[in-house]
This record gives sequence, structure tokens and C-alpha cells, in this order.
Amino acid sequence: MADVYPNESTSNGTAAPGVTTGAIRGSHKVHHHTESGLRVPARRIELSNGEHLDVYDTSGPYTDENAEIDVHAGIPPLRRGWTDGREHRTQLEWARQGVITREMEYIATREDVSAEFVRSEVAAGRAVIPANRRHPETEPMIIGKNFLVKVNANIGNSAVTSSVEEEVEKMVWASRWGADTIMDLSTGSRIHETREAILRNSPVPIGTVPIYQAMEKVGDPAELTWETYRDTVIEQCEQGVDYMTVHAGVLLRYVPMTAQRVTGIVSRGGSIMAAWCLAHHRESFLYEHFSELCEILRSYDVTFSLGDGLRPGSIADANDRAQFAELETLGELTHIAREHGVQVMIEGPGHVPMHKIAENVRREEELCGEAPFYTLGPLATDIAPAYDHITSAIGAAEIGRAGTAMLCYVTPKEHLGLPNRDDVKAGVIAYKIAAHSADLAKGHPRAQERDDALSKARFEFRWNDQFNLSLDPDTARAYHDETLPAEPAKTAHFCSMCGPKFCSMKITQDVRDYANRHGLTSVEAIEAGMREKSEEFTSSGGRVYLPVAE
Amino acid sequence: MADVYPNESTSNGTAAPGVTTGAIRGSHKVHHHTESGLRVPARRIELSNGEHLDVYDTSGPYTDENAEIDVHAGIPPLRRGWTDGREHRTQLEWARQGVITREMEYIATREDVSAEFVRSEVAAGRAVIPANRRHPETEPMIIGKNFLVKVNANIGNSAVTSSVEEEVEKMVWASRWGADTIMDLSTGSRIHETREAILRNSPVPIGTVPIYQAMEKVGDPAELTWETYRDTVIEQCEQGVDYMTVHAGVLLRYVPMTAQRVTGIVSRGGSIMAAWCLAHHRESFLYEHFSELCEILRSYDVTFSLGDGLRPGSIADANDRAQFAELETLGELTHIAREHGVQVMIEGPGHVPMHKIAENVRREEELCGEAPFYTLGPLATDIAPAYDHITSAIGAAEIGRAGTAMLCYVTPKEHLGLPNRDDVKAGVIAYKIAAHSADLAKGHPRAQERDDALSKARFEFRWNDQFNLSLDPDTARAYHDETLPAEPAKTAHFCSMCGPKFCSMKITQDVRDYANRHGLTSVEAIEAGMREKSEEFTSSGGRVYLPVAE
Repeated sequence: MADVYPNESTSNGTAAPGVTTGAIRGSHKVHHHTESGLRVPARRIELSNGEHLDVYDTSGPYTDENAEIDVHAGIPPLRRGWTDGREHRTQLEWARQGVITREMEYIATREDVSAEFVRSEVAAGRAVIPANRRHPETEPMIIGKNFLVKVNANIGNSAVTSSVEEEVEKMVWASRWGADTIMDLSTGSRIHETREAILRNSPVPIGTVPIYQAMEKVGDPAELTWETYRDTVIEQCEQGVDYMTVHAGVLLRYVPMTAQRVTGIVSRGGSIMAAWCLAHHRESFLYEHFSELCEILRSYDVTFSLGDGLRPGSIADANDRAQFAELETLGELTHIAREHGVQVMIEGPGHVPMHKIAENVRREEELCGEAPFYTLGPLATDIAPAYDHITSAIGAAEIGRAGTAMLCYVTPKEHLGLPNRDDVKAGVIAYKIAAHSADLAKGHPRAQERDDALSKARFEFRWNDQFNLSLDPDTARAYHDETLPAEPAKTAHFCSMCGPKFCSMKITQDVRDYANRHGLTSVEAIEAGMREKSEEFTSSGGRVYLPVAE
Repeated sequence: MADVYPNESTSNGTAAPGVTTGAIRGSHKVHHHTESGLRVPARRIELSNGEHLDVYDTSGPYTDENAEIDVHAGIPPLRRGWTDGREHRTQLEWARQGVITREMEYIATREDVSAEFVRSEVAAGRAVIPANRRHPETEPMIIGKNFLVKVNANIGNSAVTSSVEEEVEKMVWASRWGADTIMDLSTGSRIHETREAILRNSPVPIGTVPIYQAMEKVGDPAELTWETYRDTVIEQCEQGVDYMTVHAGVLLRYVPMTAQRVTGIVSRGGSIMAAWCLAHHRESFLYEHFSELCEILRSYDVTFSLGDGLRPGSIADANDRAQFAELETLGELTHIAREHGVQVMIEGPGHVPMHKIAENVRREEELCGEAPFYTLGPLATDIAPAYDHITSAIGAAEIGRAGTAMLCYVTPKEHLGLPNRDDVKAGVIAYKIAAHSADLAKGHPRAQERDDALSKARFEFRWNDQFNLSLDPDTARAYHDETLPAEPAKTAHFCSMCGPKFCSMKITQDVRDYANRHGLTSVEAIEAGMREKSEEFTSSGGRVYLPVAE
């Protein structure tokens, strides 16, 4: 990926207040209004032909030229007061009662569907709205297979490296490029402080894996207790975490199933719970106290992300007995959570060869009552460390197409190191590509608009429009500059690949101009017309490789 | 992608003789011997546990420490004399006669299948061996859906930029990283000279699009004649080009079908032929003289790559009337070529959303008698210029899985500029990932060996083995160095993501060690054993996050 750094003149914005701000190149923030007047953000890309395209915007106030950003004060609490005077219920409970919440209304406008459709999908458990009532800063979004496929970006410091400011900037940076949710996977010191800073500044839902912090408190998995874990979950609910990964499906009897795997247990949370079960030879306290956990999450409307602690860590272990045994238990827990009125999504693998991907979605939907599936990749092969954003984008596009609702990104540093700023961007862009490819494959009614607008711009040699309509205008422009730096090249009627004489798009322009000149619309008419006027066309044959302008 | 430049200490080798030489890090060239004693190259990756893995090797003498490289003299003519005393026939004709050629024998060892199987696939037209008898430098390889999926890399200067030396180095560089064939798409000046230098130095088959050079000779498509084209084809056959893209399927009556497309005609060759047809209002001279063309290619055993001149250039145009009309004509031409004893493969798109990809393979196999399909990507979306190696790797993996035999790479510069050294590597690696993902999905008997070896190394914390088994050892190692530079980290029993206390792989190691200590093999035995010895395990619980070494 091209290295890009904060710079006023580009959509990488300015890093003045410690985080990246400023509009993405070629676009600016606009707001659409819902029936009751809620303001829903969108990113408007203005085109040189007077048209414009509004695209889904996850970047929050950071890309709003009119917003004042103060990382210490946090961003405005958009949802404060939305539930005033209302009894505390979860989005699932409201939906079941037939009530359309403001969050649903907001999401309907954001996804361009009816509010009633949003409500019905949430009521059915096919979609979740991760929105802890103590995280009013979040701009409501929905995760479900009948909506746009979403992308999650993981950030988080570790015992080995990184700082609070870095993590907040990673959150801002990841959502700038399109991350729909962020998971804070911090371990090591300052977990609470880091999470607080991220939550107060985050316009997207924040997910966590509470057991990491619980581990920090006790030091060894064998020392973990339900009480420590419970108190950690409450602490995080109070802070405003929107969804939590809980590895309650790792049962004692499943652990031996992993002993003969090529890569055993690769999930951190899964391995911690396995260690606890073995050390005490007792059933998982997460499984045994699951109903209590449901009551805690329900009171904040925190969404469960039931973790796949036994997910395969290699192609060899994909779709094995351990993985699917745990999935059955996740199905059982899904129904318990729903009885408690708690929203649920299910986490999935991991490392899976392409031909075994669809089965994961089929089983998950069957066992977990179509709860939104949220997968890590999967990587379609193990042989390309340093390129796992690509090995996994292949699997992610495939599993998204099969019905996965949210894709957890993988960066080029997966398996090797901690992602830096550029790795985070590379991972997010690769996953926006996978998610959009899946939206197209699923026939999402409006997904193709952006492809068509960009291809039309490309065909008409509107270079700047092509750059601005892309997922990364800066890098697209920078690559074009490498071969044809001059500004006139941005309006040239040929491109650097073939040069002026070989431009394949020109000839079509000419076929089309020819048809227009003679008012020919149907294919047949054009064909007939060309037959008559072939001499005339011959005489204009010399025009074939000259600029249209002439 | 990480920038990598020639450097003695890395697998980027030395650029001393003007091209990159030296073994790829962690591996060295070995030769396997066929029954009759032909020496077939492989790349041996030595592992720290005493094992090794031999992988398919496309890099030729450049990675052989014992080879002397002289770009001006060219590489040794491996196949010189292989057909001495034999009548001139094509591989297809020999195969039909039941004769196993040396090329087939060589390929059988290279692909680890029987020579008879190679012969039968070639005889059926399901596979081709692109090997012009005037290109003796080529190491025989096969393209067919029942063999490993292959990758082609396009290089070539253009009117706008680049030099002969650069193009030869791009060929060496691309095949170093795994390109199975190279297409020289040079336009502009010095086409003949550039191609000669590439052919004499290339261990992989070279493909071209003769109409580009024919265009250089006449300057305007309207001026093209069959005679000019024919003489250009003969000139290139004489030089040793192994396969040629011929856009003989672009018929006059198909051109109007493109007028209402979003991106019209995007193939250079296709647009040139369309321009010719319109200018003269006559049927394509390539179509009308196709039998003569077959006789020319037959006499050198040059393989046809029937070009898809009307391939879709955008998601909107995928699988449209123009595209499939041309494919029908390519099917007709395939059968004519086979009657002449000429080998044939078929070129495919382009830009296609995931759900429309499989249909392309199904129709191609049906219309073209299962002739090997050779596709450009396809890109699964149009919205990510600067990342089209990724948008297209997604489509390539999908179409490879569906039966495409060779994938033409796309670099990050697609649509924007000309690829440089790093772009070529990025494109090749992305496509090796797509091809290997397809091999796994197709259940290729030996494809998973490398995944398993790498995952086993990863699980056992054999970091250097993990790097060396990857597609790009330098970048994998460089990324690990960014977080944990010290050499001891390369043997550390944890990784930089979680740090020593959170290593998920350690716990499985412990489950496994525990099982071994007690001689427990079956899952049931392990489970039972753990029950008995749970106290003992508890006492050893403290070991959970300590290095195995201890």
C-alpha cells in the first residue's frame, strides 16, 4: 500500500488535535433528515459533470469541516435523551413490541430502507443494533445479512507496545476509511484509560473481549473467577462498550478435540477458557453463569458477540469437530440470550479454504436462528503471511456473499506484528472491497451505483472524478501522478497504459458519437446506419485516435 | 506492499548482471529427474527441524547459485535437440498420436502426475503446452484445469515510458516470484528488440498480442491489412513467441452491441479490430483468414490465446450480449484451430461481480470444448483503483476455483499507470494467493502440503521456517522485525500480537504435552486422563504461559 501521512492538502487530513481531521479528498459531509428530523450523515462526492454521489459515512465529526474536535472533551453525545421518559428496554425488546426506536429510524435513512423493515429484522434477531445506552456518542448502525455488509477493525495496545493516543488515532483513522465498528483488544496496562478515551471519541460502536482485562487483574487463567469476570463486564458496560465477545461456547469436553489439530486453539479468549477448564476440570464459568451475564448485558442493551474460541487457525483444521461442536453450543446460548431480550451475533472463522466457506454460514444460520454472523476473514490459504489482508479478503468476500453480516478485518501484519497506521488503512480498504463485492453479489439494490459512477467517469476520462469516487482518492491520484504527473493529464483523453494512439476507450467513444450524430439509438439502427454511412465513417476514420475535444 | 530492493542478504538477490539473481531466502534450487533423465527444477525450502519442502519453481537459472548469467548471451537452450529426427508436429498432434513428448515427460515430473495423464489432457484439448520450437530456453509447463492453476504477468513498455533492460528485469523479477508465463505487451518503439531480449532470457513461455506491433507499422487501425498482420505474426513466430492473443472473435455485427455499454470496448486489440471493421464496413480479416493463421501457428507449435476483445470493462457490462456473442465465435474458432492441430486457450474477463463469475466458466467450457480458460482477474468491483490487485484477486480466486486454468495478474497500477518493480511483485504475489486458494478449493492432492508445513511451523514458533515457507520470506521477516527486531524473537515462544502472557498457542502446546506425558492418544483417552489427573494438571497450571523450553 502507498504510504500516506497527514497532510492538509489530502484526504489524510490534518493531525493537529492529535487525531486526523478534515474531509476526504473530493467530498464533504452532508446530512439527510429523517421524518422526525434526525440528521443522518453521508459523504457527498461532487463530480465535475455537475452530478454527485452520496456514500455511506462512518467517519463521524472528524471529517466535518464545521465540527470542533477536542479529544479530551470527546465528541457530542448524539443519542443523549433519545430514550428519556421511556422504560429501559433493548432494541430487540422494543422491536418485538412493534416500537420503532430513533435508532431504527436513523438506520432506515442511513441504509435507505423503511424503518418498519429495520424493526422487523431486529425483532426476528436477524439484525442487531449495537448501541449501549451509555455510549451516546455512537451514530446508530445495523448489522444483519439484509443490510450493507459491515467491516470491523481491531485496534488495541499489547504488553509489547503502543500508547493511548495511538489507539484513539487508530480508531479515528480506521473509521475515516470505512470501519463500521471498532474492537478495542487492548491487553497490558492502561486498559480502562485507553478504552475510556476511545469510547468518548468514537462515532462507531465499540466492541471488547472482557476476559482480556479480567486476565490482567488475576495474571493467570487458573486464577480467573466468575466474580472477577462479572465485575469486569459491569465496569465495561458502565463505560459504554456496545458489544462484547464472550467465549461461553468453549466447554470442557471440547478441549480434547483440539489436541490433534495442526494449530490447536488460536483464539486468545478460547485458550484462556480452555486453560481454566483444564486447570479446574470444571465446566466453563461463562457457560454456567450465562443467564446472569444476559441480565447484565440486557440492562445496558449491550450486544453479545458469542466468540468462536475453537475457530480453526489453519486450513487443515477448518470445519472440524471442535469448531462445529462449539457452534452448536453457541446456538443454544443464542436462544437463551434472546429469551432475556439481549441482542446476539455469532463470531466465525478464521482459516477456511474456499470450498468449505459456505457451509459455515449454512450451519450458523441453522443453529443460531439466523443471528448475524461476524467472521474473521476467513483466510483462504495459510501460505502468505505479510499479505493476509489479501488471503482473507478473498475468504471475506466469499463468506459475505454467502450471508455473513460483518467482516472483521485482517491487516498485512497478521501473524507477524502489530498493525501501524498504514496497516490499519490497508486492512480497512481490503475489507471495504470484500464487503462491497459481497453487496454486489447479493444484489443489494443500490450497491452498484458507485461502480457505475466510477466506471462512467473512467470511460469519459474524468480522472479526478475517478479518483474521488474510489475508496482511496489519495492513493489512486498518487499512482496516476507517478506515470503522468502533469495536471493536464488529469483531463487527457487517454491513459498512461496505452498512450494516446492505443486508447481502447476512444474507439467506443467514436462508435457512440457516430450513433449520436445520426440519431441512431437501437443496436439494429446503429448497425444499419453504419452500413449506409461506412464511407463517411471511413473518412472520419482518421479521427479515431484524436481527442474528442477536437 | 513493503518496498524491496536488490540486496545480497535477501531473496531479492543481487542485480549485478542487470537482472536479479540469487536464491530466494531460505531455499535453494534442486533438480528432480524424470525416467529418461531430464532434470526438472524445484525450489527446496530447508526447515529448522531437519525436514524440507520442495515447491514448484518458475524462476529458471536466475535463482541457481551455480548458474552463470549473461543477459547478452541469454540462458541455456534447454530444449534444443529435443525434437531432432522427429517430424515437426504440435504437442496436440503428438498427444493425439499417443506419443509422450519430452515436454510432457518433463511436465509430469513438475506437476507430480503421470506422463500419460499429461498426454491425455493435451490430446483432449483440455490442456496446452505453450512451447514454440524456436524458444528452446523455455522450461516446459502446462495450462489446464486439471493441473496447478497458473499465473501470467504482463510486462511491456509503452509509447509513454520504459526501457529494454527494465522489461527483461521485469520478466526475471516476475518469474522469480512465481509468474508461470509472461506476456510482452510492448507498444511504441523497439518492440522487436525488447521481445528478442526477453525471449532469449526467459525460462517461462512468452505470449504477445501481434496486432500491437502491426499497428506500430501502419499507425492507424484503418490502414491495417491481413498481409501486414500475417508478416508480423511470422516475425514473432520466428523469434520464439510461445502463445499469441488473436482477437478474431470481434465481428462487425458485434460492434454495435457495445455502443450502449457503460465502458464500451476496453480491450486494445478488440478496439483496433472494431475500428477496422467499422472503417471498412467489412468482416474482420482475422476471422476471414483464420485458417491461414492456423497453418502458420501450427508450423511453430505456437498456441492460440483467443482474445476476448469485447470483454466487459465494468461491473455494469458483465455477461452482456456482446461478451457472450464473441465467446460463441471463439468456440467456433477453437474447433477450427484444433482441426489444424493447433493448441488453443480462451481469454476471459475482465470486470465481473462474484455471482456472475461461474457462468463465464460454464459457457466457455461448453462453447469451447473445455479449452483452457485464461482470465484477466476478473475484478469483483470497480470502486478501488490503486487496489485492483485485490479487487481482482477476489475474482481470480473465484474463477480459478470454478475451473479457470491460468489467471492474468493485475497490479495496483491497473487503470492508473504503468507498473514498476514493486507493483509487478505485488501483482504476482496477489495472484499466487488466488491461484493457490483455487488449488485448495479444487482439492488438488498436494496443494495443502505447504499450508500445513507453514501452519505447523507457526504453531511450533519456528519463525524463520514460517517466513521461508511463505510466498514472500523477505516481507514476512521484515514485518516481524518491525515489532520484534531482535534475533531471539525469531525463536520466542510467543508472538508480538499477544505478548508472552496471552499466547493462545501455548495452552494447546500444554494440552498436547500433557497428553503426551501420559501417553494419551485418542480424544477420549485424553479426556479421561485429564479427569483423573486434574489435580496434577492444576499444579502444572502455572506452566501454562511459560516457554516450553523451561
